[in-house]
Amino acid sequence: MKRVVFDTDIGIDDAMALLFLHFARDVELQAIVTGFGNASVDSTTRNALYLKEKFGIEAPVFRGATEPIGPSLLRGYPDFVHGRNGLGDIDIPDLGCRAESQPGAQAIVDVVRQYPGEVSIVAVGRMTNVAAALELCPELPQLVQQLVVMGGAFGFNGHRGNVSPVAEANIAGDPLAADRVFTSGLPTTIVGLDVTEEVIMDRAYFDSLRKDAGLAGRFIYDISRYYLAFHESVTGRYACPVHDSSAVAWLLQPDLFTTLDSTIRVATEGIACGQTVWAAPGTRYETNGWDGLPVCGICTAVDSDTLLQLYADTLASAVGKPSR
Amino acid sequence: MKRVVFDTDIGIDDAMALLFLHFARDVELQAIVTGFGNASVDSTTRNALYLKEKFGIEAPVFRGATEPIGPSLLRGYPDFVHGRNGLGDIDIPDLGCRAESQPGAQAIVDVVRQYPGEVSIVAVGRMTNVAAALELCPELPQLVQQLVVMGGAFGFNGHRGNVSPVAEANIAGDPLAADRVFTSGLPTTIVGLDVTEEVIMDRAYFDSLRKDAGLAGRFIYDISRYYLAFHESVTGRYACPVHDSSAVAWLLQPDLFTTLDSTIRVATEGIACGQTVWAAPGTRYETNGWDGLPVCGICTAVDSDTLLQLYADTLASAVGKPSR
Repeated sequence: MKRVVFDTDIGIDDAMALLFLHFARDVELQAIVTGFGNASVDSTTRNALYLKEKFGIEAPVFRGATEPIGPSLLRGYPDFVHGRNGLGDIDIPDLGCRAESQPGAQAIVDVVRQYPGEVSIVAVGRMTNVAAALELCPELPQLVQQLVVMGGAFGFNGHRGNVSPVAEANIAGDPLAADRVFTSGLPTTIVGLDVTEEVIMDRAYFDSLRKDAGLAGRFIYDISRYYLAFHESVTGRYACPVHDSSAVAWLLQPDLFTTLDSTIRVATEGIACGQTVWAAPGTRYETNGWDGLPVCGICTAVDSDTLLQLYADTLASAVGKPSR
Repeated sequence: MKRVVFDTDIGIDDAMALLFLHFARDVELQAIVTGFGNASVDSTTRNALYLKEKFGIEAPVFRGATEPIGPSLLRGYPDFVHGRNGLGDIDIPDLGCRAESQPGAQAIVDVVRQYPGEVSIVAVGRMTNVAAALELCPELPQLVQQLVVMGGAFGFNGHRGNVSPVAEANIAGDPLAADRVFTSGLPTTIVGLDVTEEVIMDRAYFDSLRKDAGLAGRFIYDISRYYLAFHESVTGRYACPVHDSSAVAWLLQPDLFTTLDSTIRVATEGIACGQTVWAAPGTRYETNGWDGLPVCGICTAVDSDTLLQLYADTLASAVGKPSR
């Protein structure tokens, strides 16, 4: 049984990833920690609470970071991707559930301390909450079993940034936090655009989810309309990459991915701000910003077909489970 | 007949490129402009004068930039690559030739103004002299026929930086100058590590040059010993990439290369300082540092075998030409 803290700026693909975690066998979701990103932290927290109630998710919801700890090239929230409410502008009734009083970063620390060596953090928004948890608990790297991050773009498979030519949104939204997390020694695997843009859900895939995955499938179908329209406007294809659920897939079945151990820094200034810059261990450069740092795993390839099947099978297993 | 200004921090591979230009058919070398980089400007100017005298090169030598105009991650000179004197520590006797009194940047402007629309600048060192020429003559982009740059790393063919994971030495040595040049509207083609590291001269190649290319071949053989030993220490192979001569090859035979038209910015701050960041024209990003800029051509692929043959054939044509 994997104990998981889900750190998320819910978000259409975040909601899909949360349901993936919720319905996965062998996952015990300990906490949902929210943050700003795809929408304001008010919206993402409201969205987390709505999903918790709608799908009977037991894990408590903790409100996390409101803003980045350092400079960011991004302004406002990407309502053109996720809708103004973060869930494709579907109706979100208040189901009466409220967030815990504890701040998100403290909740991460508390869960990790409660189960030392047993907790995986799946972080699919800005790295702000994890960076804050490191401040609260410098020994976090020795206590966490695994950090799985959706973020970054490392230049593999021809994929580059999505908010600048070199920067991905989760990292560009708080580059300094990401730089601190990736150099902290936390046992980290990063699922970046290099692989998430290799995993594509198309019209037929969502049609199947609606047909085969019960309430969850119909919900995903509904929230994804806005997201698919955005991606169609960019790529010309009514289909979307699988960002956050790919991070969950790494947790559930890491052998779907090829990884490269590497030191990583994040550019925090200038036009490359938010870029994840990797160096292979042992490579010597005249500039030495990467020397002696702990390594992270970068995902460089993915078995897309099996990942998509795993997601569909997991969601289909939801049929008949309790929900509101 | 191509009128050429060669802007160079001579340098072992710069010397090879100068001889390539000197012995190429259809090239009329108008000026050699020196700069700091592979060695101090004192050394590179001395090296240019030595080559001019030794090989009977008619073009005058102008001393150029001493230091970068903006911040650089690089310190000192790479004597571990080019030797303390910039030419692999061979003996360099004073042959009595002196540089012109005019500064290098002014010489670029004067030659270009003398032959408007006819002059190509082959710039294989820092972009400092060309940036200074743009300051002196803002209409330079309308007067220059072509700027060919050896520099940068754009992430094609798996090649990355050589002084940091993302930065190449010529650009990292004066990032602000490069950013100004690449956004100036000068008709520019950039021959970066993406292609120069695809063109390899090995032991047998240099042996053939020594045998077949007369004094020039023997000279290249001698200066390359130091350079090859350095590359062997890094790669384990007694062979070197062909940096500066690839820029000359683009001038002589551009159809050896595949190019991509793209807007380019150079990171001038932080850990990515010196990185050449390209954006395909028309791509929209939330961050807009690339919008509306003039495009440059980036070389993304090269016919290495034909390039190597062109170099060898050109140098072999040198046999029997006057020299000291």
